[in-house]
Amino acid sequence: MGSDEKYWLGFDLGGTKMMATVFDAGFKILGSHRVKTKGREGTREVLDRIIETIQESLDDAHIKAQQVGAIGVGCPGPLDLDRGIILEAPNLGWKNVPLKETLEKAFGCSTVIANDVDSGTYGEYRFGAGQKARCLIGVFPGTGIGGACIYEGRIFRGKTSSCMEFGHIQVQPEGRVCGCGQLGCLETVASRLAISAEAAAAAYRGEAPHLLKMAGTDLSSMKSGVLAKAIAGDVIVERIVRNAAQHLGRAIAGVVNLLAPDVVVLGGGLVEAMADLFLGEVRKTVDARAMKAFTKSLKIVAAQLGDNATVMGSAALAADAGNGIQ
Amino acid sequence: MGSDEKYWLGFDLGGTKMMATVFDAGFKILGSHRVKTKGREGTREVLDRIIETIQESLDDAHIKAQQVGAIGVGCPGPLDLDRGIILEAPNLGWKNVPLKETLEKAFGCSTVIANDVDSGTYGEYRFGAGQKARCLIGVFPGTGIGGACIYEGRIFRGKTSSCMEFGHIQVQPEGRVCGCGQLGCLETVASRLAISAEAAAAAYRGEAPHLLKMAGTDLSSMKSGVLAKAIAGDVIVERIVRNAAQHLGRAIAGVVNLLAPDVVVLGGGLVEAMADLFLGEVRKTVDARAMKAFTKSLKIVAAQLGDNATVMGSAALAADAGNGIQ
Repeated sequence: MGSDEKYWLGFDLGGTKMMATVFDAGFKILGSHRVKTKGREGTREVLDRIIETIQESLDDAHIKAQQVGAIGVGCPGPLDLDRGIILEAPNLGWKNVPLKETLEKAFGCSTVIANDVDSGTYGEYRFGAGQKARCLIGVFPGTGIGGACIYEGRIFRGKTSSCMEFGHIQVQPEGRVCGCGQLGCLETVASRLAISAEAAAAAYRGEAPHLLKMAGTDLSSMKSGVLAKAIAGDVIVERIVRNAAQHLGRAIAGVVNLLAPDVVVLGGGLVEAMADLFLGEVRKTVDARAMKAFTKSLKIVAAQLGDNATVMGSAALAADAGNGIQ
Repeated sequence: MGSDEKYWLGFDLGGTKMMATVFDAGFKILGSHRVKTKGREGTREVLDRIIETIQESLDDAHIKAQQVGAIGVGCPGPLDLDRGIILEAPNLGWKNVPLKETLEKAFGCSTVIANDVDSGTYGEYRFGAGQKARCLIGVFPGTGIGGACIYEGRIFRGKTSSCMEFGHIQVQPEGRVCGCGQLGCLETVASRLAISAEAAAAAYRGEAPHLLKMAGTDLSSMKSGVLAKAIAGDVIVERIVRNAAQHLGRAIAGVVNLLAPDVVVLGGGLVEAMADLFLGEVRKTVDARAMKAFTKSLKIVAAQLGDNATVMGSAALAADAGNGIQ
């Protein structure tokens, strides 16, 4: 490795935790650091914590800031991608935070920001389950449902911000109230949070005794792992998950008819915790609903990078920007 | 104009008529010829008619085949785009017809084929209502509902064929039977054909006397112009059209949330015949349903090129191929 070798830094800014990871030119992990975000403490505090976390990861990797080629950050949106500003991050209480400028000042190297789901999907495209796909769709059911599209090697994006708002595909015109103000968006029926709410109601009614014993009726205890365990004992929880996966499958079928992807990657804690059940149901539904011309060569697979997807994708985007690719 | 000036030929192969148009390097129309397709007469006969029609358009333009830089053809699908084969065209009774090879032999110049809706939308992008759009969506309600996306100057396509099957977005999971075999696809409620069928039923029930007088109850008489005239007298026909436009608007809202286009172009005979009513209703619905971040800079406009869209787009694609753009 020559002394002019460049290193890339990927950062994942989440609502509950943040993580910085240092990569060598071949995207091998050299060091990493992860802490709680504590968004309530205020913008300046969180920005300082981001800088500290990056510094810790550099120390962990025995790399100096001057050796970093560029920093890539996956953030919640909406963003101004070109100016590198987080326009709004409700989880962090942020408005118009110039993250790119802040990090460029702190570390003296160029910084790119991207939507976190875009970064994660790009990570899977470069290093994970979606490698070499001509058109890759990433779908991540969590509190909401994140979506992204990598088309011919580049993130499909809006003019100034990210797009592919998968969770807000309307699946029930007269359905439940969504956080976005509309009725019946996909995430009101197929997110981990929607599944948790439905499972908690079943527990409350006495129909899911195993779940009730493990988690009570509090949504904040209904994590993916708990739901996965409950399935073994509570038939109704399995039905709730299958029903949600079918909703997701129908929405994916619609996107397949529009964009004809080669690969759909499903990721996030929920999918990881019950990959066979969830993917099986999604595959069956998409096969039944999408057009044969598009399903015959389509692969629907589980994400491979887990929590590393966003830092890896962000670091790769930072490297691409240096090479004028993205 | 030098003697080595190139001319481009655009061809529109429709189920009922075909048209060839010759353009100069600045895409000015020099000559054109249009005849009925008569698909029932057999593959060889239709291929011969295509060749004759191209020759007639060249004669009309006083151009020799040797002066044509390339031919572009907009065809019904599914297609093998790279090999230039029409895999299947139910309207023509065609299977696996090597159109590219046939025309290259006949005229000695390179030929590209594209989906007709892709060509038409590309025409609007290059010369019509969608010029300079970063992301343009074309939607053409007719017998079905064609869709296309021009993203950063290029047609968004599938691996070997076209995509953006707009008419097969499912809007009513328990809805009407669609030609594709699914239930409740958008084109079962919002195509010109669906509107005609609903209006014909209203005429049959005696609720649309003006329509009944003009067109009876036969769908093949319920053309866009007739429907537009009926609206002036029959309130129910206006309601049927508004309802269809709202369905279309909801589907477009979903696509706006996914792809964040700058411009949506609506075209085809139905839209042309009642542009204010149809576009007004679609705009209102999209504004109400799509995310503000995407609608604030979105334009929804009527197509400008009418029947010339496909020949112009096809000719431009042929020229691009020569320049390695598409």
